[in-house]
Amino acid sequence: MSELKSYEGYCVGASIGELTQAVDQSMIDAYADASGDINPLHIDPEFAKTTFFGRTIAHGLLTLAFVSRVLSAWNWQGWAYGGELNVSFLGPVYPGDTVRVSGDIEQIEKRKDGVYARCQLVCFCGERTVLKGFVISKISK
Amino acid sequence: MSELKSYEGYCVGASIGELTQAVDQSMIDAYADASGDINPLHIDPEFAKTTFFGRTIAHGLLTLAFVSRVLSAWNWQGWAYGGELNVSFLGPVYPGDTVRVSGDIEQIEKRKDGVYARCQLVCFCGERTVLKGFVISKISK
Repeated sequence: MSELKSYEGYCVGASIGELTQAVDQSMIDAYADASGDINPLHIDPEFAKTTFFGRTIAHGLLTLAFVSRVLSAWNWQGWAYGGELNVSFLGPVYPGDTVRVSGDIEQIEKRKDGVYARCQLVCFCGERTVLKGFVISKISK
Repeated sequence: MSELKSYEGYCVGASIGELTQAVDQSMIDAYADASGDINPLHIDPEFAKTTFFGRTIAHGLLTLAFVSRVLSAWNWQGWAYGGELNVSFLGPVYPGDTVRVSGDIEQIEKRKDGVYARCQLVCFCGERTVLKGFVISKISK
């Protein structure tokens, strides 16, 4: 394994893209239907009132889906086949919140089977960090 | 940080649950709509024919949503707030495939702010491993 500063237009420090996405209850409900994840914390306001959060929250994997959209727009081939994802869910996303996703390349590695980029990822709702982590994605053909 | 063999009914080696889920194109389409991830690789059979895969594949995060359902059924409080996820996507899930998710507790750690379980996760389609990784989830109140 060796580290590179750039590879075919991919450069350490470069942005991999950004996305801003508003979240509402109907989006959360649609995600629950599509994924089969119908935990009442996400879709039942009365139940959610009884929890630590006090109201419904979006599925963490809905926020992660926004990250995936950025990754897919940036390098869908690498992401669709063989990506590695390491993320921490740091806080809730509530209906009415707007999630801002950004990421940049922090490392480019040449391995035996190709060249990989390690990209930092972060999602904010206003000033709050709601998700943080990184993805490793193949950038050579 | 110290390691424990068990904590309040959680034991190293215990299953965290299993799930078997069939995937079809309509589920993939619904997931694309709900998540906004409309990469044609997932939803356009004609485009997908031109790719490495030769046909549409499910979003990796749809498979991960099945993992999330297992985690949520096992310990939704720990998962909904502050989970850490580390997974590799190892192969495609095609419409018509059935995904089998399983997981077990491989480590229980006492940290300053609570007790956490590290759980191994694996998803198969038949004999093929399509996702592998682990989650770290708080198990103390």
